[in-house]
Parts: sequence; C-alpha cells; structure tokens
Amino acid sequence: MKASELVNQMAGSGVMGAGRIAKASVIMKEMLSDKECKVFLGLAGAMVPGGMKNILVDLLKSGKIDVFVTTGANITHDTFEALGFNHFQGCPKADDAKLHKEGIDRIYDSFLKNEVYEKMEDFFKENFEELSKTKNIKEFLWKLGELLPEDNTSILKTCSQKKIPIFCPGIADSGIGLMIWGRQAEGKKFDLPVFEDMKEIISIAWDSKKNGVIYVCGGLPKNFIQQSMQFSKGAEYGVQISTDTPQGGGSSGAELKEGVSWGKMKEQGKYIDVYCDATIALPLIWADVKDKI
Amino acid sequence: MKASELVNQMAGSGVMGAGRIAKASVIMKEMLSDKECKVFLGLAGAMVPGGMKNILVDLLKSGKIDVFVTTGANITHDTFEALGFNHFQGCPKADDAKLHKEGIDRIYDSFLKNEVYEKMEDFFKENFEELSKTKNIKEFLWKLGELLPEDNTSILKTCSQKKIPIFCPGIADSGIGLMIWGRQAEGKKFDLPVFEDMKEIISIAWDSKKNGVIYVCGGLPKNFIQQSMQFSKGAEYGVQISTDTPQGGGSSGAELKEGVSWGKMKEQGKYIDVYCDATIALPLIWADVKDKI
Amino acid sequence: MKASELVNQMAGSGVMGAGRIAKASVIMKEMLSDKECKVFLGLAGAMVPGGMKNILVDLLKSGKIDVFVTTGANITHDTFEALGFNHFQGCPKADDAKLHKEGIDRIYDSFLKNEVYEKMEDFFKENFEELSKTKNIKEFLWKLGELLPEDNTSILKTCSQKKIPIFCPGIADSGIGLMIWGRQAEGKKFDLPVFEDMKEIISIAWDSKKNGVIYVCGGLPKNFIQQSMQFSKGAEYGVQISTDTPQGGGSSGAELKEGVSWGKMKEQGKYIDVYCDATIALPLIWADVKDKI
Amino acid sequence: MKASELVNQMAGSGVMGAGRIAKASVIMKEMLSDKECKVFLGLAGAMVPGGMKNILVDLLKSGKIDVFVTTGANITHDTFEALGFNHFQGCPKADDAKLHKEGIDRIYDSFLKNEVYEKMEDFFKENFEELSKTKNIKEFLWKLGELLPEDNTSILKTCSQKKIPIFCPGIADSGIGLMIWGRQAEGKKFDLPVFEDMKEIISIAWDSKKNGVIYVCGGLPKNFIQQSMQFSKGAEYGVQISTDTPQGGGSSGAELKEGVSWGKMKEQGKYIDVYCDATIALPLIWADVKDKI
Repeated sequence: MKASELVNQMAGSGVMGAGRIAKASVIMKEMLSDKECKVFLGLAGAMVPGGMKNILVDLLKSGKIDVFVTTGANITHDTFEALGFNHFQGCPKADDAKLHKEGIDRIYDSFLKNEVYEKMEDFFKENFEELSKTKNIKEFLWKLGELLPEDNTSILKTCSQKKIPIFCPGIADSGIGLMIWGRQAEGKKFDLPVFEDMKEIISIAWDSKKNGVIYVCGGLPKNFIQQSMQFSKGAEYGVQISTDTPQGGGSSGAELKEGVSWGKMKEQGKYIDVYCDATIALPLIWADVKDKI
Repeated sequence: MKASELVNQMAGSGVMGAGRIAKASVIMKEMLSDKECKVFLGLAGAMVPGGMKNILVDLLKSGKIDVFVTTGANITHDTFEALGFNHFQGCPKADDAKLHKEGIDRIYDSFLKNEVYEKMEDFFKENFEELSKTKNIKEFLWKLGELLPEDNTSILKTCSQKKIPIFCPGIADSGIGLMIWGRQAEGKKFDLPVFEDMKEIISIAWDSKKNGVIYVCGGLPKNFIQQSMQFSKGAEYGVQISTDTPQGGGSSGAELKEGVSWGKMKEQGKYIDVYCDATIALPLIWADVKDKI
Repeated sequence: MKASELVNQMAGSGVMGAGRIAKASVIMKEMLSDKECKVFLGLAGAMVPGGMKNILVDLLKSGKIDVFVTTGANITHDTFEALGFNHFQGCPKADDAKLHKEGIDRIYDSFLKNEVYEKMEDFFKENFEELSKTKNIKEFLWKLGELLPEDNTSILKTCSQKKIPIFCPGIADSGIGLMIWGRQAEGKKFDLPVFEDMKEIISIAWDSKKNGVIYVCGGLPKNFIQQSMQFSKGAEYGVQISTDTPQGGGSSGAELKEGVSWGKMKEQGKYIDVYCDATIALPLIWADVKDKI
Repeated sequence: MKASELVNQMAGSGVMGAGRIAKASVIMKEMLSDKECKVFLGLAGAMVPGGMKNILVDLLKSGKIDVFVTTGANITHDTFEALGFNHFQGCPKADDAKLHKEGIDRIYDSFLKNEVYEKMEDFFKENFEELSKTKNIKEFLWKLGELLPEDNTSILKTCSQKKIPIFCPGIADSGIGLMIWGRQAEGKKFDLPVFEDMKEIISIAWDSKKNGVIYVCGGLPKNFIQQSMQFSKGAEYGVQISTDTPQGGGSSGAELKEGVSWGKMKEQGKYIDVYCDATIALPLIWADVKDKI
C-alpha cells in the first residue's frame, strides 16, 4: 500500500487523529500549490535529533517554502551533523551520570558526542572573520550555511543555497549562541541586532496576496510567524502539528482558530490542528503531499 | 512511496515517536509470525466511531489474533454499523443542545443518529430468545455476531465466524448492556455470569508456549489481558499504542516494562510503547506489517 | 494561607487550570449541598496506590455520596491495605526485573509486596462461604467490606457500613476477580450476574429529582454512570478530573458538554472539566469544599 | 486546612502527582533558603494571561530570585496590565470571528481588548527616547519597568526596582518587539545586541558556588538557563513544572535528569519534574514554601 493511499483511507473516515492527518494533507497540498501564497514554516522541538532533517531538507528543496523560522537548537544540531557528528539511537532510561562521564549528551533517546562542541569551536574560530561580516541573523545563518562543508546536505546549507529567508530570533539560546559568546569572551567585537529581521518577515507577510503557515511543535517559531500574520489579512492556510493541547493556554497548543480573534488567521481560511508526535505526522503528511504535488 | 518504505525510513533514525512506530512494526511482525505464540488484542478507546473498524476486521481476518478483548462501547458501535447506521463526520465544537434536539449523539467529531437505539431494540427483541440461550459473555457475543445481518462485515461477525474468543468483562457498561436491561425490565429472566470467561482467557495464557499482547488505548481490555499474563511466563512480545503517559500512574499509560515487576511481561521480552493517537499509529503499523507477513 | 483561600484566589483570575479548579470547587459545593440531588462518584485510575484512599473515605463518610462506581483495581488495592499491606513509595525508573525477583509489584512509583496475594487467598478461602451467599456485585462488595478486619478504615468497609450502593461492572478485571477464579478452579460453584446491578443504578438515576456526577480519571466508571444518566433528565451538576483531553475521542477525555448531545447532561446544567492529575486536583478541591459545606 | 498542611499530606503518600508537588515544595524551600545558591527562574507559557502575575511578583519580591528569564509574551502582557488593561475571563469556545469584530484577542479562555496595542504605541512613542538609550535587553527591560506607571505592581517594575537581572533572548517575538519594529518603521535608529546578555547570565552561573533552577512551562527560558548551567558545576537544585512529557523529545518536557548527561544538572543534585498545569501547581507550591521560609 502506498503512503498516499493510507492517507486517502484516513480521509475516508475523516474523524479523530486520522481525519486530522488527512485534512492536514489536503490543506498543505493546496497551500503549496497556490502560486499566490507565501508559505511560512516554523520549526521547534527536537526535530533534527529526532531524525527529521532529511524530510525538512526535502521540503525546503521543493521550492515551496518561502520563509523558514526555527529555534536555535535545530540549526545547531544541523550544524553538528554538517560537521560530521551524527545523532545516534540511545535509550531514554540511560544512566545520565554514566553518559556524562563517557562524554555523551542525551536528547531523550537520541545521543550525541559532546566532543562535537570542540569541533564546532574550531570551525567558528576558523570562519569567524567571514561570519562576523554579516549584519543580521538571516545573513549570518546564510553565511554559516555557505561555510559548512561542501559534501553535506544540511538545513542551513539548503536555506543558504536557495536563498530561503531563515529567521531565528532566539539564536542566543543555542550552541551557535555559545560560539559567539566564546568569541566575545576572546575579545572579538561582534554582535547582531535582535529586532532587525522583524522588518523582513513582516514585509513578506504584508506584501503577499495570501499567506500559509506550517507549525511543527509550536514554540517561539510559531508565535513569531503568527505575530507577522497580524500584518497580513490573516493566513489563508494553516497546518499545525503538536502534542500540546489548547487546555494549557500556551501558544504551542493553541488552536489555529484562536488566531482568528487576533486577525492572524483569516476567518474563512483553511486550517487544521494535528495532535500528534511530529516525527510520526510530518513524514506521513509529506509522503502524501509530495506524491500529489 | 509505499507505507512500508515510510516505516523503514522511520526505523532508520530509530528515535522518538517515529522510532517507536518502527519498533512496534518489527515486534508486531515477529509476534504475528511466531507460530508458537498466541496473540491477545485488547481494544479500548473510540476506535469504531474513529473509523478503525475495517483495519480491525482485517487484522482479525488475518488469522493471527487468538484472543480479542474489547470494551462494550466498541462492539456496540460495531453492532450499530452492522444494523445499517454509520458514524458520520461532524465537528467537535458543534452545539450539543442543538444536536440533542436533532437526535444526534456526538463522540468527539464522530456523529451518530440516536434512532439507532430504536432499531437496536427491535433487533434485540426479535432475537432475544436465541441470544438468551447463551451461557457466557463470549458465547453471547458470538451469537450476536451470528445473528447480525448477513451482508455486513463486522467485528462481532468476524469473531463469530472465525471462532476467535472475544471477551468483554465490562459488557454491562454499553448499549448492549442497556438492551439486556431493557429485556429484564420487560420481565425476561436472563443474565450472564461475570467471572465465567476468566477461566478461558487464563487457560489460553497458561497453556500457550508464548504469548504476545497488542494494546490499543489501554483501558479495561489491557488490564484484563495483563492479569491473565500473570498465569503465563510473562508475555514474550508486546505493542502498546496510547496517548496516555506513565506519569499519571494509571494502567492505560503504564509502560509495558512495568509488567515485568508483576511477572506479566517477560524480562527478556520484546515490547514497545507507542505514544500516539491510535487512529494514526495503528493504520500505519498495520500497513507495514501486512505488507511484510 | 488556608487551602480554601488558595482556591478563592484561583477563582479570582478564573482562567486556565486554576480557574477550572475554582469552578469545580463551586460546582461540587453546590452539588453536595443540594438536598434534591443524588451524587454519583466514578473512580478510575490508580487512586488507592496513589495515596487518595483517605480523601475518598472522607468523601464517602461525608454522607454526600449516593452512588459509588469503581474499577476493580481500586477496591482490590483497598482490600490489600485493609489486610495490612501498604503501598510504599518507590521509583518509576526501578529495575523491574530486580523488583520481580524481590517480590515487589510496581504501579508507577507506588510499590507493593506481591505476597499480599497469598494473604488475600487466605482471606477469601476463609470467608468464601459468607461471600458466596451474595446475589449481585453490590451485595458481594458490601459483604466483602463487612468481613474485612474491624480496625481498618477502608473504602469497601465505609460503603458497607453506610450502605452506599457500590457498583463495579468490571469486577472480573481485578485481583478480586482472580480470587473468585481461584475458588472456581478449586471446584466451588459461584458466580454473579453481570447485568443485574444496572437495574439499581438506572432506577436511582430515574427516580431522583436531580443528579450530580463526579468523575475521577474517566474509564469504565464514568461511562457506566453516564449511561444511567440517559434515564434521567440529564445530570444537573458535573465535575470531571482527568489528564486525558478530548482530542483522542475516547470517553475518559470527552468533555462533559458532549453528554448534552446524548441527553446525559442537562443543557442548562453546571459542569466543568478539570485537566489535571487527580492526586493533585482532588485533595485541593475537597479541602476547599469540605471547609465550606 | 492550611495549604501547607495539604502539601504535607501529599508528602505523606509521596507518590504520583501529589508526591511530586510535595517534593517540589521541599526542594524549592531548600533552594530558596540556601544562602550560597543563586536561583534562576525561567518563565514560559501564558502565565500572565493565566492570572499568575501576583504570585510571580510575590516570588520576585521575596528577594530569593537572582536571575529571571522570560518569554517576550509574559512581559508584554505584564506591560498591558501595567498600562491599565486587564485580562478578563472568557470562554475557550467563543466565536473567534465575532471576537475579532469586537476587538477582543483570545488566549484560550483569557480575553484582552485589542485597543491595548494603541495605548502601548502611545506609551512607547512617549518614552522612546529614554528607552533607546539602553544598550542591552536587560537594561532595556529595567528601563521599561522604571517607566511604567508608578501605581502599578508589575513583574517588570519589580525586576527594575529590585535590580533582578531579567533576560529575554526572544524579545523580538512579542508585542514589545512589535513596538520597536514600529519605531524603526518610523525611521528611528535603534536596536539591541542579541548575544550581549549571555555574558552576564553565564558569569552569574559560573561565579556562583551553587545554582538552583525553577522552570515554569519550559520553552526558551528553560533552555537558555540550562545552557548557562553548563558553565557551572551543574545545578544543585531544580524544580520543573510542565504538562509536557519527555516522550516527545523536546526540551520543555525533558526530565531534569537528562541535564546530568550534559553537565547542566549535578549528578547528586536535588531535582523533581512536576507534570501539572502550572496555574495549579505553582500557587500550591508557593503557598507552602512561603509559609515555611
């Protein structure tokens, strides 16, 4: 059975989790096929440690993503992999004190050698002059993607090569942030403006005829895209994947529908909330959407 | 892309939700292929209203399920569909007072006409003599499956035709229970013994060389199968699908590993907990397992 | 600060989880003070292993609970404690294989000596003649409560002494069920009718002017009470405590509001869903309600 | 009954959710009483809309919090309230299109008048000269707190008056961010360095003999504090409150124990994860801790 047939069957019943997957797939297909629509992808969660890098790169290479917003963690882990350090499969019940002694960092059941940080230090030292010429976070990340080893396929390199605007307002909160802190501690004068990138993301939202949003795991990327949607007529399309639910009141679990009250989502827009682990839902939806567009 | 390729890719990263789906698929394949192993399937949740009936019937018809334990609700909804009443797609935010006036019962976003109860009353009145000859819950459910309209494919009919032992200790808690209450209220003398079926399920667990368990949505069916596992050497294989997590302390979210302390799971057994909406995880796993066995 | 002042402050903001606790407290107070209202308490989850026995007994002794519906597990664990075996505090990450060798059964982080089963066997053997004179599950449980050691305060003894109707449709799914199975295996002829108790619970719901429902952790007890509410004008008051959310579609997480479509809840009724660990929410709500009634 | 007696009783059973509340209370008490320990409080979620402002201000005024890290949203909502706009109690099922027409913004069941943005614009225009003299995010937020109306008690004003370092790396993602964007759009030259504050938070962690962490709702604030802990010997004390669970793999739900592998938490440290709505758990824990310190 093809993955797309599976999703079609889910559409057949149309209810509960399966129904939401099927609806997300239909909406995402329409969103990515709509030539008037700018697509904003927001990524939080441990998606690179969770093995989603290839799917994300595939999605970015499709040419259908116009704006990419991410946490610092996901692009730090992307950098790790570009520098030759893979995440490997561990056990969530591992003895963390023992892992610490062995130099292993744990992200639930995904493990990483801590020595990656030394390698990263070397890389940032070697390339700091180039990196420090950039004037905003987007340019910095494009430059970083450009400088990463050639033979690697990475999220950052893809964004850099395809000139996909990549925004990361919380970049200080990441291993990449620590690299800059390290250079500053060595006496280098370099910093980036925190508000600067808002101009560009708001302009894209403002100028576009229609906007579509895809939120993976909520967090800051969702909220940052949502606030730029206030400067559009409200997003026309929306797909949200998260295990968080609305009952807690936070942004990550908030229904897309809530955005209508703020003018972030269009009243007549097409949107769906998928309550599911993104490492399960995203590959399934993308397998179907890719097959059909 | 085939659904099984998708699951293979999930196995590639092997971590987080996707990794759990992939492991569940491998374990379920091995469990269903092991000729020495008796397979116990426990079903709770709103799986029939949630559109999972065809997959469940497919699984039962595969000849790989040796014991089926269910809540009363799932087989009541199966009976509804066998009598010609389908669940249809609604909205979870519908006005429930209005639905009530229109005679619609809501199960999250799955809707059902309340008149199904009248039809069910008629069916139970017509067939009560036959039904009331049965001596335990399993026989009663087999007879019910036998009496349901010929041209329908249903869980109950499948269990009846294939003589799959079907246990439902909580049967009083269901529309089927209400039908019996209705007949008793009309003066019929009929009841069934509550403990009787325990003999058979415990015997099957006891006599079998190996046991495997599949739990969909926890609940009473999980716990009832687990307690019979105490009379085996502990289940050899286990797959659990639930959105509930261990932190609440209840049985539905309890890790299968916890069963090792009780002797319900074998220390060296192969088991995995999948934290996911079952209407998403079950079709995906079954698409892969079916393709490979 | 008094616990009731804390709940009053939560009422002040009135939103999110704190607001739901405050509303639950107000509704429960009104429900328990309404002389025309019969109160149905449904208990699932691992509440006795979770240390909630004293609060439940306190609630039952208040004279405000008219019907008690429970899973087999909670009253089995109540029986364990009445026989002198306490649950003790363990670690959820314990080595289950080691626990098994040491004869310890684990319920998340609550531990229990497995030898309790031998003690229970002895108790049931000694008292089987008395127990086997009962004709339905309620009488059986009252008799069990009566026979438990005098100097213990237990849920079962409280229900027995205060003649609170106690229903447990899934009793076969429990350690108590195993005790009966054990006696049957020894050749004793004894069983109980599975549908019999429905008459009484439905009659109470039917005859009462008003009904109120309190659901702790959903499960079969919630559903069983809900189905009897169809034979009333719909419950007037409702409080539900569960970590489960509506998005999964199952009964445990279903909003009380959904019951309006079925006629189980009154359209103009007062009800609230509290999304919280019941071992946190129940003591907090009860501390406030007890202070005020 | 006093709230602290309630928490003491929860300590008595010591298991499941109640046990975690009790342990969190013991650890937080010890952490706040330890004179050698610097306490880092991380705040995400919709805590100001959720009515937690008074408790947070109380905690900040206690003199026990040495570093405060927050999302932009919580301090934006704090600013709203300081400017005289209260959140009020609404319904999570409200018609969002209607709310939009009425100028109401919804945060789950907490409502806010959208006109607050105009008032905020006025405030930022009037005070921009003062605000734009600041050189980093902390100074900016202290200045903002200083400038807010005198007669208000707010989180920002409290941090400003008590000189509690307040860090907000994701400040661009907030209403405050939008105000700066607005001024930039009017031609003002002003921005702040994104990495600058890392020096201070890392220095505090580095220089302190012991560190303690309190995480409310995970998110960026948790991760940002955690990364600074890598430059200490690992936090000695930790309390985390979140409804998110580890199974998703993300930082918000990750067990504090996971931090041991990274050197963020001390192997022999005292820490506990509380799986609960923070609007319920935080007031309960703080009522107890305040009573005892």
